[in-house]
This record gives sequence, structure tokens and C-alpha cells, in this order.
Amino acid sequence: MAYGDPFLLGERDLGLATDLYQLTMMGAYHARGDDGGEAVFELFVRHLPPGRGFLVAAGLEQGLAYLRALRFEKDAVDWLRALPTFAHVDPSFFEWLGGFRFTGDVDAVPEGTIVFANEPLLRVRAPIAQAQLVETYLLATLNFQTLIASKAARVRLAAGTCRVTDFGARRAHGFGAAMLAARACWIGGLDGTSNVLAAQKLGIPVHGTAAHSYIMSFTREEDAFAHYAALYPESCILLVDTYDTLEGCRRATAIGPRLKGVRLDSGDLGELAKGCRRILDDAGLESTSIVASGDLNEDLIAELLASGAPIDSFGVGTELVTSRDQPALGGVYKLVERTEAGRRVPVMKLAEGKVTWPGAKQVFRVYDAQGRIERDVIDLAEADPPEDARVEPLLAPVMRGGKIVATPSLADARARCAAGLASLPDELKRLKGFGPQPTEIGPSLDRLAGEIKQRTLESAE
Amino acid sequence: MAYGDPFLLGERDLGLATDLYQLTMMGAYHARGDDGGEAVFELFVRHLPPGRGFLVAAGLEQGLAYLRALRFEKDAVDWLRALPTFAHVDPSFFEWLGGFRFTGDVDAVPEGTIVFANEPLLRVRAPIAQAQLVETYLLATLNFQTLIASKAARVRLAAGTCRVTDFGARRAHGFGAAMLAARACWIGGLDGTSNVLAAQKLGIPVHGTAAHSYIMSFTREEDAFAHYAALYPESCILLVDTYDTLEGCRRATAIGPRLKGVRLDSGDLGELAKGCRRILDDAGLESTSIVASGDLNEDLIAELLASGAPIDSFGVGTELVTSRDQPALGGVYKLVERTEAGRRVPVMKLAEGKVTWPGAKQVFRVYDAQGRIERDVIDLAEADPPEDARVEPLLAPVMRGGKIVATPSLADARARCAAGLASLPDELKRLKGFGPQPTEIGPSLDRLAGEIKQRTLESAE
Repeated sequence: MAYGDPFLLGERDLGLATDLYQLTMMGAYHARGDDGGEAVFELFVRHLPPGRGFLVAAGLEQGLAYLRALRFEKDAVDWLRALPTFAHVDPSFFEWLGGFRFTGDVDAVPEGTIVFANEPLLRVRAPIAQAQLVETYLLATLNFQTLIASKAARVRLAAGTCRVTDFGARRAHGFGAAMLAARACWIGGLDGTSNVLAAQKLGIPVHGTAAHSYIMSFTREEDAFAHYAALYPESCILLVDTYDTLEGCRRATAIGPRLKGVRLDSGDLGELAKGCRRILDDAGLESTSIVASGDLNEDLIAELLASGAPIDSFGVGTELVTSRDQPALGGVYKLVERTEAGRRVPVMKLAEGKVTWPGAKQVFRVYDAQGRIERDVIDLAEADPPEDARVEPLLAPVMRGGKIVATPSLADARARCAAGLASLPDELKRLKGFGPQPTEIGPSLDRLAGEIKQRTLESAE
Repeated sequence: MAYGDPFLLGERDLGLATDLYQLTMMGAYHARGDDGGEAVFELFVRHLPPGRGFLVAAGLEQGLAYLRALRFEKDAVDWLRALPTFAHVDPSFFEWLGGFRFTGDVDAVPEGTIVFANEPLLRVRAPIAQAQLVETYLLATLNFQTLIASKAARVRLAAGTCRVTDFGARRAHGFGAAMLAARACWIGGLDGTSNVLAAQKLGIPVHGTAAHSYIMSFTREEDAFAHYAALYPESCILLVDTYDTLEGCRRATAIGPRLKGVRLDSGDLGELAKGCRRILDDAGLESTSIVASGDLNEDLIAELLASGAPIDSFGVGTELVTSRDQPALGGVYKLVERTEAGRRVPVMKLAEGKVTWPGAKQVFRVYDAQGRIERDVIDLAEADPPEDARVEPLLAPVMRGGKIVATPSLADARARCAAGLASLPDELKRLKGFGPQPTEIGPSLDRLAGEIKQRTLESAE
């Protein structure tokens, strides 16, 4: 259609869902005649964003779905072939693209896993042209959901046993981002979303009340309340701050014991919650809950609860689904092994501040006797695990030869995150002032990196 | 599919792409029996984000495509009907949903228009249940693209005549956000994108070079360069900072006059650009350009250029596509008119800090003799325009009875933004230290608001 939304993406679109340079590099690998030469890339975060003591891995399901569906439709190949950039590339490259499938192996940490800097979230072993192509989409997918699941986990920690709902759809980076954010929020431990489509597609609880425009569409606030309560007797939460919050709360008490809650969306939420609590209690509505929303984040929630605000439930929007204080995760996808003359060669980048540890790696998580994370040992994948009593290797096979071999459910991811948060040492669990990252480089990796540095020094002399 | 990506959204999904409370309110309007009662909502921003002197409206095309395609598939209706929330809602509501179409009128400022706080970007006149439902998706769509087009315009202003490419796909909030961002960046004045799918779907230039992994897949840097140059002789831009930037640049000169550019992605970009320029010039490659990338934004670009860095082209990623310094736009969608007993009643919200001006509005832009924005008069839609020589009403009909009636092209939007930037007074065009917003409330709107405030005061007494 001439005037429409080209951004409702389908599987047909996935081939071109990448940066141009991945395709020019593929063309070069193809021309070199070694698209079969295997390479290993790892996806990781060099440094945690400021204000984060840990990350929650998320987005793997969408990443694997992409790898499985990835192909180049004929119109995509024709479009590429006509680009001036590719004028000198052999036609056999475009024929090869037409039959392209991702046939590699992927190992990854399960969604919901707590991770730290320099720990691979995902490792791809595939012919280098394949492994290179998928960088952009995998990064876009895992970076964002990991960012939001991590933010949601902080909100979860701050809110304690209060209910928290994702209200962010309208401020997310498009409705597609709202969907991914709702999923990541559920993994991170929130209790539901206001996003109906996300709830339907993911089978997660959907929450909602009414807006100021609804109240204002009646001449009298009390008529709006009565009308709503009659229609939704079992889920009647009334928005009481359209005119005067305390007066609104008084009017809401007319509903009686069926009034499930009142929602405050503006003003001094702590003080207003106390006032509303008194009004509700005086009316005998001790079990009516108080819902607060309006530009909340984990720090404000912690402050409200610390000040004794009698709030039972929070709606969190903009700050959560944009991770407003840190709106980007700098995940990278780096070559760590390549093939030279049929031999596997670990690759190490030595640039200042951008060191990439060489070789295919594993993260061995060591727990103490109480089940808490004691340390993470980042070592070569084939290294012996640390000789501790409780060791968990975090990366596991998820794709072999382009076929998905592990299909954890969304419920698994959510449970894994909850267990992970419980296993976090206190100094990493707090909202700020974190202790050091609990990671260390294992002996095999340390030895390999030392050898490569030595060789590089010698060859530079 | 059991394990897949539920987030490749299709037109079938649009009915549920909303917040639950829009549907509970629709149910209430339906029950009240007045889903035909007309309402007017306006979408606007109350305050510009800090660090912004203006906004660039964007996202309308996707918003209108949504309104046109919007419907509820049978499975969506069945899913809603089964929600406990809707247990007491009359079955006729769900039948009605099954036949739902958006049949309203929409007026909007064309994409690419410069806008300020409190100026409606879009106005919906429709039966209230329809107008309410569409809030979430419209906000998600217009908020995000307006945010990014505005950021891109700042980058454009900072970069002057240098070429700027969107490199952000991997750090956007999912690949769908990367697509929307690439579109908004093009409207805002960038010169191209690295996002192949966006380039294909939108017909905009696509740029790309190669990554460090490509260079590292060869044993010798010079072999990587030679191989790439042979394959891409007309678009050979070489990444020279994998090992040692200046040495890399020297090696790149071996390509000779076909070397179109060198790219620097790390280190002190200003100093390295000067060093590379000398090396290139000494090799007689005066027309080889220098491309810089790596965590750039409009402030850093302005600093680099002010310091005399000989950079010809910038790649900008994370900071741009997440609008990192201000990652959310607080656009709202507010009821400004409703129907009572068949009469149109303007609605005004008086809450402190959240005043909503009443009635359907127009923005009259007044230009001075040099074609620069002198002031914007926000007045009622039916008010007489200001009696100035050059007045442009910004909102125009884009949809009537659910049919799209205006279809500006993406090229129109881009040209409009460029013209708008040229018409900006200097005190709003600079990167910081802005003058006051040039908006004022027109006489008709001022009179109406005064009357409503007076009535509210009287009724409160």
C-alpha cells in the first residue's frame, strides 16, 4: 500500500533486518571463498550501566525465533543486487543469499538469569558470514529486553510485596517496543501489564481501571463512579484525582465494600495515600486498596514505602519501559574465535578500554552454602569447572545446526529471575552503592590471554 | 507456533494494541448507550523536554495507517469476553466490537512541522468510545517518532554540511524501534541509515562499511583492506582503528585514489582525524574523506567541528535512536470537547501543572518578513486567524469518516522539516540556552477558558 505502516514486520522481512556492513562483509567472506570457515561470536556487556548492580538476561526467545525464520526473499535479493555498492560483487553471492539459512550452533544463558559485565549472554558458532549477519538483530533484541528486565527487577526489589503493573505502552519506543517491554517486565518480576495485546499473546495478567477523560465525560464525578462500579463490580478501582483527590475518595466510598481500590495519579502521592487510607478506613473499607501511578520509578517507590505511605499497588510507565535513567544497554557482539587453515584460532582485541577476552567461554557460577552467588568464574568453555561444591555453568545449548533445542517457557524465565534475585548478595541487591562485581577470570582463560598478549608484543617488536 | 516471536505485529493484532482501561471505558460508554456521543481529543506535549528548543512532529503516517486498519478479529473479541473484568458487560458490547471500525475525523500538523509545547499535533473527533480506544497506539507512535525526529534535527544543526548516518539499529528498543527511528531520522534531516530494511521500505540511502571483526578475520590488516577494496571499488571506506589508527590509515593509503574514506570508531576522534588527514594529504588523497563514529551526539559533534577536526561524515547510533539524554516524550492525549444532550461542550482540566486548554484548537503560525517564525497563536479551531501578513494554520484535515484524505510523502516531511529549521529564530535553533517558546493563547481561546474557570469557581462556592 502506498500510504501505510511499513513497520508491522513479518518473517519475510528478516533478511534485510540488519546493518548494511554485515552484508558487505558477507559479500567479502563469500568472495574470499570461505563462507564455510567457522567463527565464534559472543554477545556481552563490557560494563554495567551506572546505577545497575546486575542485569537480568532477556530476549533470547525472540533472538532464536529470528535465527530460525531468517531468510532472504527474492525481492530482497533483487533489491540488494541493484545497490551500487554491490555492483562488482559476483552474481553467485546473490544466488547464495537466496538459499541462505542460519545453520549454526547457539549457546546462551537462560532468560531470567542474573548476569554481570563481560559474561557472554549468548555465543554463536557458525560459518563466519552467517554469524556476522545476525549481529544487528540479535543485539537489538537482547539489548533491549535485558535493559528492561533489569530495570523491572529493580522496581520489583523496591516495591517489596506491593503489586506492580507495567503502564508504559504509550511512552515506549513504538508499540513494538511496548510489547517487548511488557514481556521483559514480566520476566523481571512485575505482576501484570496494562497492554492488552501483550497480555493476550503472553498469557500474563492484564490490569486496568479508567482515565480522567472517562470521569470528565460525566457531569458529576459520583455518576461516573456509580456507572463504572455497576459494570465492573468485581474489579472496581476508581480514579479519584480528577478534581479533588480526597473529595473524590470520599465520593468513591459510596460504592461500598465492592470498591476494590482507589487510584491516585497526581499530587503528593504519599500524603494523599495517607488521607485516602483514613477516609477508606473511616468508611469501613479496610480492604479497599490504594493504587498509585504517575512518573514513578524504583527510587520514588522505595521513598514512598520508607515514608510509610499506605500504598498497596503501583502503576509504573515511562521510567520503566524506557529505562529512563539508562535508556540503552551497550551490549556488544564480538569475534572471539576464527578459523585459519582449518585450525581454530582464538581472537583477542587489545584496544584500550575495549579488551575482548579470547575464545569460546563459559560462566561458572559458584554458590555458597546458603545458595547465594559467591562468585562467577569466566573461563574457556572447555575448561574444568571450579572445584566448588555448588557450581552452575550458565551457558547451555539452545540451538544446534539452526534447530532450536531448548524451549524454556516464559514462566521458567520469570521463576529463574525470582530465584536469581533471591540468590543475590545484599551488596548487589540494593538500589545504589553496590559492591564490586563478583566475576573473576578463570585459569584457562587467563593463561590463553597471557599467551596472546605475549605473541602480540613479540610480533610488534 | 509455541516458541516464536509474538512481536512481529500484523494488522490483525491492532484491536488489542491498547491499554485495558481504554476497553473498560469503551464498555462503560457502550453501556451508557452513547457510543455515538461525539468527543474531541487532542495530542500534545505540555512542556518540551529539558534540552530541547523545539520539536519536529513525526509518526502521523503510522498513526493513520493504524486508524484505517484497526479492527477486532474474532479471536480477540472471544479472548476479551472471557476476561473476568468483563463478566458483567452485556454481550452486545462484544458484538459491537466485532464490527468496530474507526469512522472519525482527524486533523493534524504535517510530519516534519516544527512544533512547541501545548500545540496539538493531532486532533481526533469521533464517537467517544472510538476516540478513547486509539489513545495508546497513537501516543506510542507519535511520541517516539517525534522524539527521534527532534533529536535528529539537533544532530543535523550541529553537523552543518557534514554527512550524518543513523548507525543505531543495534541499540534501539528492538528492531521495530530501529525502523521507526530510521524513518524519523530521515525526516529530521540525516543523510541515510545503516538499516537495510528501513532503506528498502522507505527508499532512503543506505550506508555501510565494515566492522572490526572483518579486519580481524584476516591475519594482516593490509590484506583485509585490499580484499575489501577489490570488491567495493566505488564505495571503499576502510575502518582503520582495529589495531593502531594512524598506522591503519597509512596502510589504507595503499589503496590509492579509489579510497573513498577512512573510518575512526575509537580514541580521541579530533586528534586522530587531524593525524589521518595529514597522512591522506601526504599520500595525495586530498579527496578521501574521514568518517567518525562511536558514542557521538549533537554536543560532541559541535565540539569536534568547533575544534577544527577535519571530519567529513558522522555515524551516530545509540545517542540518536534512544534520544539518550531525553529518552521519552511526555505527549498526552486529552479530552477537550464532549457532547451533552446533543450539545458540544468544551472541557477544561484545571489541575495544577496539568491544565488542559478547552475546545478543538488550531495553531496559527505567524511569519515575519524574512520568513522566520515570529509567533504561534494557539486559538479555537473556528477562531479568526490573526490579522498578520503571513499566517499558516498548522493543523489540516488528514482523515474524514475514517478515510485518509491527505497523503504527504516522506520526502514532503523531510523537506518541511528542513524549511522549518530554516525558519527557526536563532535563539531556538541553538543547541542550548534557548529563548522563550514563541507561543501565545489566542483571544477566542482565552475568553472561553476564562468563562470555564469562572463557572468552575462559582459552582465550587
